[in-house]
Amino acid sequence: METIERQNVERVDLERIDGPAFSPAEYAHRLGRTREVMAQRGIDVLLVAAPDNINYLCGYDGWSFYMPQVLIVDIEAEQPIWIGRASDAAGARFTTYLPDDRVIGYPEHYVHARDRHAMSHVAQVMVDHGRSKGTVAIDMDSFYLTPRALDTLRRDLPDCQIVDADRLVNWVRVIKSDAEIAYMRKAGQLADEAMRAAVDTIRPGARQCDVAAAIYHAKVAGHPEHEGDYTALAPLVMVGERSSAPHIGWTGAPLEPGQNTMIELAGCYKRYHCPLARTVYLGTPPDKVRRVADALGEGVEATLNAIQPGMTGAEVEGVWRHTIARYGLEKPSRLGYSIGVGYPPDWGEGTISLRPEETTVLQPNMTFHLMPGIWLDDFGIETSQSFRVTEDGCESLSSSPREFIVKD
Amino acid sequence: METIERQNVERVDLERIDGPAFSPAEYAHRLGRTREVMAQRGIDVLLVAAPDNINYLCGYDGWSFYMPQVLIVDIEAEQPIWIGRASDAAGARFTTYLPDDRVIGYPEHYVHARDRHAMSHVAQVMVDHGRSKGTVAIDMDSFYLTPRALDTLRRDLPDCQIVDADRLVNWVRVIKSDAEIAYMRKAGQLADEAMRAAVDTIRPGARQCDVAAAIYHAKVAGHPEHEGDYTALAPLVMVGERSSAPHIGWTGAPLEPGQNTMIELAGCYKRYHCPLARTVYLGTPPDKVRRVADALGEGVEATLNAIQPGMTGAEVEGVWRHTIARYGLEKPSRLGYSIGVGYPPDWGEGTISLRPEETTVLQPNMTFHLMPGIWLDDFGIETSQSFRVTEDGCESLSSSPREFIVKD
Repeated sequence: METIERQNVERVDLERIDGPAFSPAEYAHRLGRTREVMAQRGIDVLLVAAPDNINYLCGYDGWSFYMPQVLIVDIEAEQPIWIGRASDAAGARFTTYLPDDRVIGYPEHYVHARDRHAMSHVAQVMVDHGRSKGTVAIDMDSFYLTPRALDTLRRDLPDCQIVDADRLVNWVRVIKSDAEIAYMRKAGQLADEAMRAAVDTIRPGARQCDVAAAIYHAKVAGHPEHEGDYTALAPLVMVGERSSAPHIGWTGAPLEPGQNTMIELAGCYKRYHCPLARTVYLGTPPDKVRRVADALGEGVEATLNAIQPGMTGAEVEGVWRHTIARYGLEKPSRLGYSIGVGYPPDWGEGTISLRPEETTVLQPNMTFHLMPGIWLDDFGIETSQSFRVTEDGCESLSSSPREFIVKD
Repeated sequence: METIERQNVERVDLERIDGPAFSPAEYAHRLGRTREVMAQRGIDVLLVAAPDNINYLCGYDGWSFYMPQVLIVDIEAEQPIWIGRASDAAGARFTTYLPDDRVIGYPEHYVHARDRHAMSHVAQVMVDHGRSKGTVAIDMDSFYLTPRALDTLRRDLPDCQIVDADRLVNWVRVIKSDAEIAYMRKAGQLADEAMRAAVDTIRPGARQCDVAAAIYHAKVAGHPEHEGDYTALAPLVMVGERSSAPHIGWTGAPLEPGQNTMIELAGCYKRYHCPLARTVYLGTPPDKVRRVADALGEGVEATLNAIQPGMTGAEVEGVWRHTIARYGLEKPSRLGYSIGVGYPPDWGEGTISLRPEETTVLQPNMTFHLMPGIWLDDFGIETSQSFRVTEDGCESLSSSPREFIVKD
């Protein structure tokens, strides 16, 4: 790994060559904040299993999360330990700042084995590092920790008290640094270009899959100045009556006049997402569709105009709800959610939602996807906006005009 | 939902309009085989949480698996029950054969809530259907079942014995029907076209992200005759030294002469995958690279020529291992794995692997991704082949020539 170390020393353009996406100081700051919360909660060791949280703390970026992997954050150690499949240790050396002795691969015989689990290897590393006792926290409602993984840890670390980390790192992530915001603005540019490509493709006779293909090409080819990453969700393209379902995909059917197409996509840069949704009508929309689109447009503008730091998530949602109620409409699902680093299956952070029960107070440099959508029995319309909370309002992270798009 | 019901009755082209991807008889057969295994193992109710298994049993296809969802398979009921987020119930009506009373949405207040879990709703449905007692099986090493979800079930169904389903449905899936094989051949065509687009794009000055964008466009735009779906993994494009790591992504850097590019992608049709990996060298490969490529080529051909039903997975791997050992090479990670329906994060079925410990015997219409790859310190080469086991050998599911590709 000589060459990689040399690159890390000689780097001139952090964003274009190998290595993690942020400066060592930024990762140190993130770890520091994580350790502060660990100390407050009496946690000795945090085991991080979700790929977004692992990326946030050490930069690791690889499509290896279909196998168990863990970052060990010890409150007394300066640097965490990455543990994954042996063949992926090379990827950790390319994408993290960790020295070789903090990158540990588990042997291949743990892969899809019925009689052993890779978490036994994690437990052994804990023991080897003097952590066979103490309070160990791990997220118990994270997609990338299975019940069997947790049972293995409990069995192999019998003297540890294993507690729910309760999305500790996700909550550390909610206020972004300026460097993160800069990446999210680039993601916003990618989202704008992908949406433009989609709208340009929509015409009678183009197939639904052609629209999806145009989105993929634009968001990944990126700008002349920078690439685009894969996004945590596939782009959603729902046409005609299928636009009444928010999360189903495209088909191979050709588009027809009189059809409504709902598109939800994101741009992604260095794993930071900017989601964006628009609705395109081919032909002249019926009054019913137009009326819903008008209500939605009024609701989203009223909401964005009202946003201020100090408001709760519930207060933001209330502005929207009262506005569309005047049109006799409602949206039972949440109005938005915190965004940032993401891996499949979700670009939401799993923390703050914009909904009636949300008591969390908005602060500057929190980032959200405001996704006002209305789904009726036979069609749906969505016009979304990703934004950053500023000192006195909010900043749009993408530039696409907020409109219900009508094409002839 | 009148229109959908009408379409189900009047359908003329099953593949092009709404509804599940297979005939009612095929789903009935799959459920029948599932119930047979449940009966053998004394299971009254199987709770299916993984999106691939849910799709396999009822056709459901939506990007909603970032929220809890479950299919209840009751050994005494003809049809399963789909339970997901209320807003996704519309998607179930578009993509499954289930009648409205077998599609149940849970309320929005379960979403990312700290004090309640959607599995409580699932437990209540079980009670409502007379299943508050008995043996309930659920996969305990599936990414889409969290420890908290399982704890909730245990708490809310105290009189049920909850046992590990141990990938019951995954094992039912290993032998494909002819209809599934037909879809996998279409996926193979998509993989071929995506690989062709990638190789065409590779030239000095093209950026790594341009290669990825070309792959995405080709695999999703699909054939004139049919669309392509999103794949369970993002395409992997690893250039230069990064080709020594098997699962990291592209950057925005331009390609240079003397660089090795490793590509792993898949075509996907109706959620059925055909993975495909190739390696492209720009310029004249050094002897060392050429020697590894030759060994790999000999190994993959020897292995494919040897495959017969009746061999174990270990015997298949042995052919490969002995062939490359003559060149002083080895591949510590498994040589291949069973493929079929897939959702992120994996297109493998999590059942049969081609590796030294695998005792499962190959049977006709099993399908695998044979992925012979060799990763050294500073480069890697992979030339893979997805295949179906036939009555007397194997059939390639894609047509791309198996070669180490050299471009000037």
